[in-house]
Amino acid sequence: MTDLDNLNLDNLRVVLVATRNPLNIGAAARALSNIGVERLRVVNPYEKAFREARSAVGASAVLARAEEYTSVAEAVADCKLVVGTTAAGRRELQHRLLRLDGGVRRIKQQLQTGPVALLFGSERFGLSNEELSHCHWVTRIPTREQHGSMNLGQAVAVCIYELVRGRKTVSAKILPGKKEKTPATSGDVERLTQALLGVLRASGYVKPRTLAAEEQSRRLLRRMEMSANDAEVWLGMMRQIAWKLGVSE
Amino acid sequence: MTDLDNLNLDNLRVVLVATRNPLNIGAAARALSNIGVERLRVVNPYEKAFREARSAVGASAVLARAEEYTSVAEAVADCKLVVGTTAAGRRELQHRLLRLDGGVRRIKQQLQTGPVALLFGSERFGLSNEELSHCHWVTRIPTREQHGSMNLGQAVAVCIYELVRGRKTVSAKILPGKKEKTPATSGDVERLTQALLGVLRASGYVKPRTLAAEEQSRRLLRRMEMSANDAEVWLGMMRQIAWKLGVSE
Repeated sequence: MTDLDNLNLDNLRVVLVATRNPLNIGAAARALSNIGVERLRVVNPYEKAFREARSAVGASAVLARAEEYTSVAEAVADCKLVVGTTAAGRRELQHRLLRLDGGVRRIKQQLQTGPVALLFGSERFGLSNEELSHCHWVTRIPTREQHGSMNLGQAVAVCIYELVRGRKTVSAKILPGKKEKTPATSGDVERLTQALLGVLRASGYVKPRTLAAEEQSRRLLRRMEMSANDAEVWLGMMRQIAWKLGVSE
Repeated sequence: MTDLDNLNLDNLRVVLVATRNPLNIGAAARALSNIGVERLRVVNPYEKAFREARSAVGASAVLARAEEYTSVAEAVADCKLVVGTTAAGRRELQHRLLRLDGGVRRIKQQLQTGPVALLFGSERFGLSNEELSHCHWVTRIPTREQHGSMNLGQAVAVCIYELVRGRKTVSAKILPGKKEKTPATSGDVERLTQALLGVLRASGYVKPRTLAAEEQSRRLLRRMEMSANDAEVWLGMMRQIAWKLGVSE
């Protein structure tokens, strides 16, 4: 057994956000089942799409057990790494963009230590800026610029395949590193984000309820890729500052 | 340029044999178009399936130019290497079976010198023994034994992706156009450290002039490995908070 054979796919959560077409939810579930990934999460699927997919003949166990959420924040709360997917080219990305074949190594490393979420946006619009703001970085399948947008079910299949390819080869082995610090969960970082925003609003740095500032702060904090310990330290600081500024929780 | 960049995809012919579902022909065409493979061939598709796929809204140029054959022999006649695909496990294969991630190297080598066909069988039965008999060897995507059979469109996408992954070894990490972030200088981070400390003291989080807290904050900020831009954003935030807390510089 190589380290790659130890690849812990139980730690992977494939998250479909605002999916419209039941066939695509079904196709994604099938790919997960083919490859051996069990955790499918859906965020605000079109009601009908999810119901139809679940009742489809031959719906896999993966689909039957899929978990439904009403926000990306909740769907990724237990994850230490959140990776978005994009066809890119369509907008200015605020995130670091790694090609799937390059970025996969980081995903595999993280899978050894804790939950990782891989996010797929809606068929028509992909992930919104708000949805992307929950991601640590973004990945893209190396498609042509002229026709970059892949079918959702196919994109899921390719991404999951990339995770398991080369699994039984010695050369692709990931070297065991020194003990890694435990990364903060998305839930931790989101709590910190809200605390920071409270402070920033109270200080007049951002106007109350400005969405852009919220997304910017969320991205800023995720880029730091901080450890659980550091996130706790920051949260303590922010809470103290908030208290001093008279912010009510 | 590496050898991989010379990969001649013009030499690849993706051959769909006896496909029943127009959605799958359309999905295969889309994946080819995404990745940049132009030659799609169909052998005895269900008449209606092929007509419907071709007339589908958004049918790619690939689909419009797809060539139709009445036998596998004709469809692969110009090819120097013919590779079949299988979910395996279902019958005794007479062929050498190579995992996709292992066999891809041979396909790439052959693509440098002449036409290569990659065959996909019908959704229900896969490739028949007669159809397989035209193949030099057979490949399989590493799926679970308990659920090996992939959706046709997804299988095509994964196989084509495997051919192009790792293609631009130089830019595999970060796509061109995306500027590498410039790391903050130590001076930047130190200014931020002092600003943070000012805020922390004013809020009562640390006692005035505590050396341990100063060192802790310094290490904390350096662990973030932030970019120059992010350091500036943080500094702006801290200065605003400091002003609100009545800290004098």
